[in-house]
Amino acid sequence: MPCSGSRKPRDWSETVDFPAGFHITGINREEDENKLALITAPEGMKTAGVFTLNTCCAHPVRFSRENLKSPSHKAIIINRGSANAATGKEGKDRMLGLVDALCGRLNIKREEILAASTGVIGKQMNVTERQIEDLLENRGRVEPYDFADAIMTTDTCRKVAWSSFELEGKKVSICGIAKGSGMISPKLATMLAFVLTDADIEKDALQLALERAVNASFNCLIVDADTSTNDTVILAASGKSGTKAISADTKRFDIFYEHLERVCVVLAEQMAADGEGATKMIKLMIRRAPDEEAARKAARAVSSSLLCKTAFYGASPNWGRIVSAIGAAGIVIDIEKLSIYINGVSWIKDGVPSESSMKQVREVLAGSRFELDIDLNAGDFESVCYTCDLSPEYVRINAHYVS
Amino acid sequence: MPCSGSRKPRDWSETVDFPAGFHITGINREEDENKLALITAPEGMKTAGVFTLNTCCAHPVRFSRENLKSPSHKAIIINRGSANAATGKEGKDRMLGLVDALCGRLNIKREEILAASTGVIGKQMNVTERQIEDLLENRGRVEPYDFADAIMTTDTCRKVAWSSFELEGKKVSICGIAKGSGMISPKLATMLAFVLTDADIEKDALQLALERAVNASFNCLIVDADTSTNDTVILAASGKSGTKAISADTKRFDIFYEHLERVCVVLAEQMAADGEGATKMIKLMIRRAPDEEAARKAARAVSSSLLCKTAFYGASPNWGRIVSAIGAAGIVIDIEKLSIYINGVSWIKDGVPSESSMKQVREVLAGSRFELDIDLNAGDFESVCYTCDLSPEYVRINAHYVS
Repeated sequence: MPCSGSRKPRDWSETVDFPAGFHITGINREEDENKLALITAPEGMKTAGVFTLNTCCAHPVRFSRENLKSPSHKAIIINRGSANAATGKEGKDRMLGLVDALCGRLNIKREEILAASTGVIGKQMNVTERQIEDLLENRGRVEPYDFADAIMTTDTCRKVAWSSFELEGKKVSICGIAKGSGMISPKLATMLAFVLTDADIEKDALQLALERAVNASFNCLIVDADTSTNDTVILAASGKSGTKAISADTKRFDIFYEHLERVCVVLAEQMAADGEGATKMIKLMIRRAPDEEAARKAARAVSSSLLCKTAFYGASPNWGRIVSAIGAAGIVIDIEKLSIYINGVSWIKDGVPSESSMKQVREVLAGSRFELDIDLNAGDFESVCYTCDLSPEYVRINAHYVS
Repeated sequence: MPCSGSRKPRDWSETVDFPAGFHITGINREEDENKLALITAPEGMKTAGVFTLNTCCAHPVRFSRENLKSPSHKAIIINRGSANAATGKEGKDRMLGLVDALCGRLNIKREEILAASTGVIGKQMNVTERQIEDLLENRGRVEPYDFADAIMTTDTCRKVAWSSFELEGKKVSICGIAKGSGMISPKLATMLAFVLTDADIEKDALQLALERAVNASFNCLIVDADTSTNDTVILAASGKSGTKAISADTKRFDIFYEHLERVCVVLAEQMAADGEGATKMIKLMIRRAPDEEAARKAARAVSSSLLCKTAFYGASPNWGRIVSAIGAAGIVIDIEKLSIYINGVSWIKDGVPSESSMKQVREVLAGSRFELDIDLNAGDFESVCYTCDLSPEYVRINAHYVS
């Protein structure tokens, strides 16, 4: 389906000031078994990270989680083609081989680099010296689209989002680049996201901001309810905007956070829209739930129900499946108080289909993007999910991913 | 796919003695909006039941759960076409209208009947007086296949299983008839199963036997991990075999239970094989798990992972998805101890693909039925799931179920 990230401006600088202090590039050649992408911050960056909770996580996840303790980093390396999970000691050695080769050439320490991978699980990564040379040749460039292209797997379009604001008369920029299309579930997803900013911000404030923003965006994302071995979100700050350092729980932090969340939500929406085989992107809201847990559970239950997702694909107004998915999650609802709206049009009112607007409901269901509001009328809590439909194409993509 | 339940013998009595003491029939005509099926036991039956845990359960589920308290029943009525869930007071009234019409004609009390429904959620049931008349005309017959046909929704073949044994020189028969194809998950499924026996057995022993058998069969069944509003399993005993009454925790109980479990497992396998759009039936075993919970969680995680199910559909040896599904469920495994066998052929040995047998693995994966043994080598616990692959046809069936 159409994806906002795919509209490539002729020149990056036409649309956005890329955050100062970073170089970014990637090489994405047919002939390479693994592709490589690189972010460098010659004068260093503070970093924050959020990783998959999958217990069988990949070597680079373990490596980066540990390395995040360093006060500052200078590079992030990503390989695509092998997830480098379930690859044993050999997989770890290959990752460290790549890391050490880069550290040697960039003249940095192993503690100053982070790593991420995406691709087939259980397959060894395979990177040549020639590839490393070619990547390093581009290391002084700012090529966010080349980076975005190099990390895509089944993605049909790149995911890029940005925002900027003024602080003390200085411009502060945030730019996020992500990949993710299948194996996507809350508790992250098979997704990688790298959000760069030239804000000057304290390391603990950075981690706090990232965790909050992930909860409001990527953790609300459901394509197929599978949680991958490799999910990684890194937020890196170069401090080059020239403002004073931002501390947590200040008004300046709130301004920074607002823009960070916007970037992450746009990336999450782009991922939902590009869900494997998706024909529709759905923003699903549970409203007036009795408690927070019920709101979240209900949103996730409907978003991950195959029967709801196939009905969305067929534009079939099968509201009973929504009720059943919520009930199956153990949420007690009073159906006679339940109302459902789609793009603001009444679909179900107090448990009864709104016959007079059903034609409009069908039209909206047939579109490529809609908002579904499920009002339980039982309290004050709400929750959002960004999700998509399930099409035969999803099955086709995933039936033969490894052949 | 081929389904053992579809082989209809010319005459039921050729293959099996139907349990004595029951009449069973159904009417399945194109022109009727709802179809009806009926079991009667003129001299009464003791009953046990297990029902869906979906909090938005259907009216007949609430009715039967409450009515199960009666010491004896004389009829079970099933309607297909409307699930009679999310239908409000009107839905309850329509159900009671049908129940009362039957009770009047059969000259039994409302406490002596059980009810079940299957079909679209949120749609009112619609049964005519003419239909009730036609059904009652057949009430003295033994037509298990007509019953089975009347309760099928998206099922492509009927599900029937039976077993018999001798007790004190008397023959005891058990016959189960079920429907279920989609919205199937542990904690039951969109499934109805009616297991009839002429065993003489105490009511508490009957409930105990049923709960155990459901745990070993229907609760191990995963098609799409959706739990319906209507799942119902009824075990009914007429006592007509002429033996002494069976009590719980006796050797005679164990013999009865063994045959009951066999019937339920065969029905569960038939349902997995007939999963909506399924091209393969898979018996999935987790072996040597560290504890019971881990074994069950791992079996369900792999069985409900869309990525594993699509890989099975594509006969793609993508073992990394199995590892990832187990890890995503939070189970800690040592991949270097993990082995996977398919129909006894080594696929993964100590975390490494068995290259020498990979050709055979691919051949088995391409078949229509296989057993997958996932050996965690971490303890003594095991768990089974009966499941199927996920095909584009599943999506097609469910995209337009309501139009």
